[in-house]
Amino acid sequence: MKYGITENVKTIESKVKVRDIIKKIAEKKANAIKYYLEGEEFKQAIIFGAYLSGNYIANMIKPDCEEVILIDSQPHLEDIVTGNGIKFMDLNTFMLKLRNNNSKEINPDLIIDVTGLGGVDPNILKDFDPKVLIIEDPKSSFDKELMEADNTHKRLCVGQRKGSLKTLRSSKISKTSGTMTLTVDVIMDSCMDIKELDGVLYAVPNLEYFEGIVFHEKDVRKFLREVNTPALTVSCLGNLDTEIDEIIDINMNKIHSFVKPVQ
Amino acid sequence: MKYGITENVKTIESKVKVRDIIKKIAEKKANAIKYYLEGEEFKQAIIFGAYLSGNYIANMIKPDCEEVILIDSQPHLEDIVTGNGIKFMDLNTFMLKLRNNNSKEINPDLIIDVTGLGGVDPNILKDFDPKVLIIEDPKSSFDKELMEADNTHKRLCVGQRKGSLKTLRSSKISKTSGTMTLTVDVIMDSCMDIKELDGVLYAVPNLEYFEGIVFHEKDVRKFLREVNTPALTVSCLGNLDTEIDEIIDINMNKIHSFVKPVQ
Amino acid sequence: MKYGITENVKTIESKVKVRDIIKKIAEKKANAIKYYLEGEEFKQAIIFGAYLSGNYIANMIKPDCEEVILIDSQPHLEDIVTGNGIKFMDLNTFMLKLRNNNSKEINPDLIIDVTGLGGVDPNILKDFDPKVLIIEDPKSSFDKELMEADNTHKRLCVGQRKGSLKTLRSSKISKTSGTMTLTVDVIMDSCMDIKELDGVLYAVPNLEYFEGIVFHEKDVRKFLREVNTPALTVSCLGNLDTEIDEIIDINMNKIHSFVKPVQ
Amino acid sequence: MKYGITENVKTIESKVKVRDIIKKIAEKKANAIKYYLEGEEFKQAIIFGAYLSGNYIANMIKPDCEEVILIDSQPHLEDIVTGNGIKFMDLNTFMLKLRNNNSKEINPDLIIDVTGLGGVDPNILKDFDPKVLIIEDPKSSFDKELMEADNTHKRLCVGQRKGSLKTLRSSKISKTSGTMTLTVDVIMDSCMDIKELDGVLYAVPNLEYFEGIVFHEKDVRKFLREVNTPALTVSCLGNLDTEIDEIIDINMNKIHSFVKPVQ
Repeated sequence: MKYGITENVKTIESKVKVRDIIKKIAEKKANAIKYYLEGEEFKQAIIFGAYLSGNYIANMIKPDCEEVILIDSQPHLEDIVTGNGIKFMDLNTFMLKLRNNNSKEINPDLIIDVTGLGGVDPNILKDFDPKVLIIEDPKSSFDKELMEADNTHKRLCVGQRKGSLKTLRSSKISKTSGTMTLTVDVIMDSCMDIKELDGVLYAVPNLEYFEGIVFHEKDVRKFLREVNTPALTVSCLGNLDTEIDEIIDINMNKIHSFVKPVQ
Repeated sequence: MKYGITENVKTIESKVKVRDIIKKIAEKKANAIKYYLEGEEFKQAIIFGAYLSGNYIANMIKPDCEEVILIDSQPHLEDIVTGNGIKFMDLNTFMLKLRNNNSKEINPDLIIDVTGLGGVDPNILKDFDPKVLIIEDPKSSFDKELMEADNTHKRLCVGQRKGSLKTLRSSKISKTSGTMTLTVDVIMDSCMDIKELDGVLYAVPNLEYFEGIVFHEKDVRKFLREVNTPALTVSCLGNLDTEIDEIIDINMNKIHSFVKPVQ
Repeated sequence: MKYGITENVKTIESKVKVRDIIKKIAEKKANAIKYYLEGEEFKQAIIFGAYLSGNYIANMIKPDCEEVILIDSQPHLEDIVTGNGIKFMDLNTFMLKLRNNNSKEINPDLIIDVTGLGGVDPNILKDFDPKVLIIEDPKSSFDKELMEADNTHKRLCVGQRKGSLKTLRSSKISKTSGTMTLTVDVIMDSCMDIKELDGVLYAVPNLEYFEGIVFHEKDVRKFLREVNTPALTVSCLGNLDTEIDEIIDINMNKIHSFVKPVQ
Repeated sequence: MKYGITENVKTIESKVKVRDIIKKIAEKKANAIKYYLEGEEFKQAIIFGAYLSGNYIANMIKPDCEEVILIDSQPHLEDIVTGNGIKFMDLNTFMLKLRNNNSKEINPDLIIDVTGLGGVDPNILKDFDPKVLIIEDPKSSFDKELMEADNTHKRLCVGQRKGSLKTLRSSKISKTSGTMTLTVDVIMDSCMDIKELDGVLYAVPNLEYFEGIVFHEKDVRKFLREVNTPALTVSCLGNLDTEIDEIIDINMNKIHSFVKPVQ
């Protein structure tokens, strides 16, 4: 707590940081996948999409996989990878290996695609024969354009067992299931809820266009630094520290992630 | 427009910047005061509160005043003052002058107080005898604690003509009439409205706790730099440039400012 | 609880009835007035406006008044009056008595006006000389047209002690402080909140245009019968009886009523 | 338009009636089905669920079907059937015929099930062999309990071509795709939007628990009479007739219905 403009008004920052919300959402997705895999073991897992949940999923499934390869079209996203034993590969290198695949270096029995809208080309997937294929469905609340842009069903083209990863919010509008969309929505909705508390002047979300840092500036370290900030700052009269973090929690708990089996 | 994560998704920044919204709100307040003053001329106008609308109001009334003094408890706010002929004075200097006021240097016939909650002490005002006194009422949507903290009625203690400056939003919740509160609310509500447009993934407000820069870091230049940024950034499929700025406009037009005469 | 269309779905009616909400709001107003009057005693109290809170206010102040007269422009509203010792008078009769007031029959020391928008003509009030005058301010959330239509300040023209009765909702939009407006808003907002509960299909407010029954059909008894109905009906899977009434309570508690002293 | 309590206030009823909204939603569903069927012709169509869209769907597909049978577990729903050539059968009679089906009287090549949550038992469906099977998916905005109660996927058990009828609202919360749920939501959301218009005191939805009339009172005629009422009533200062019906239209246009093919 600090004082605001005058000593009557306090400034309270949420204990919850932007990155805590990102992490919590990514964990919900990773747990949904783990639950769907039921402890099954795999020789080679390939995850398409390092950003923003790919890395968490990789770490979650690693104990059950001999090899985990995280693939992204953006080579600089290698910097987002944490944890031992996860191999990063940029999409170009991956495509080259596929073409020259005499050595059978690439032969996944588990494929997970979290690239969402405009992500992995279904044609890349159709020549594999995995035991399990999981495609993240980017759709959330209904939106005609986003529904038409989505090709999840085309990507669900191979695999003995197929599922689509769905991440949705109870009774709240989110336009996609993307981790960044959900993070923004949790913080925005929390600010709206906090604004209604007695004695609150305003609640400011500490948001910026983080994806610009990752994809235009291509600076993953800056991104990680920028999300290491309180999710929101509140200008108010009273001691609302506890209420503020509780409201963020309530909003995070409205997110549900599960893998829906597809025939 | 830039591309987002993938080429399917665009990134659009609003043409409207945070500072445009601040300016528009400050202008509405300044216009409300000008309208109330009806072209009356003054020898000495004193404005309490340089931040955030004080400077705009000073420039608006200057043509009708021989002297305009802008007073703030924070000396570093001198940097926020623009325009010729406006004199900045920190509150301590002002109080000293008042105590030694043989020279009658301080004898305002117009007093405007925009310091809001926890601002000017009514005791400072009660020894003046201005022709016109205007106190900004910080209250907006009903909030019990904020109402109890407000002492606008006590400050309305002198003046042949007295009025309270009210700034309110039509059918929207704002907890105070402060320029920063209203700026945050316009941007937040615009993001919520934009999120509902077909093809929008998410809308991010480019907000941070700006008052921390002004009052804790005491860095007015940094503040002016930081608000010189697009009000919000939208991740979407289509060309929504026009719609986005229109929605911000609609939200700005819900703000109404007027001086309510007090007997 | 009944079953809905199928046995999977339940129908739950709120225990709270429409009339309970009307009563609670009217009581808040009556209590605000009682608190402002501080136990002072009066010889003759006149209340303008029998509908919808006038009768409750009459009953609340009766112990401290030798005579309480409830006046309404609509003679048939006599049927809304309950309690012993409250005298109903239609506006025409009242105006006639005023004109022929040799007998000093009408000489109130307490006047309360809850007629709101388009109600009592300020000219009727200006010849009285009450100890206390209370005018209900119909304004709530800001609305330019409603503000311009309001003439509360003109009615606050006499009285040794003057106050305006304000009834507002914390952080919620209500366009007027009228008992019917607030009743509708509490039920509507409760339905919106209940709809968000897990397992709820929909929540239906049991509202109709009740004022049509009172003012067009002029049938007070039918009105009293129609508001004697559960405030809302919920179609849902689970046993949400408790949650439903709690949500209505939370929304009722957002209403605050008080008399603001006017100089 | 009528006057309200006082002559300052008007009462406006929407031209759109509750039944117009019900009809529009039912038509969207019927059109979605017609579009999916692509003019294909059928010998015998069976529709499960007369209430609330079943009858509209029956009339829409009739030109392409030699026989259309509308089946409902509630015999009294025969009264809801309109149009020539549609045969109503209560579920018990249907089950009896199935058991004694020597005559092959029941042999549908098109099955449409709009019974939703807790509706048709998948076991009834599994012995048919239709060319086309369409099951209405009751789910709309995410709700964990409603998702778990839904067995649409189990009912999609036969048919050369299978699809699920989905009806969703753009960027708005609706807990199910049921015609009554959507009707309530359109009227409620319209009231909320209208309340924000300048000069509006309040907007009242003319809703009641209509399903109680159909399923508990079992009085279809009364139901049809009760929905033949303006969707909402507005208390306001100005002439908002046009705006009011436009807002209802905007809310109706947010509903989209389509058949999603299932493999």
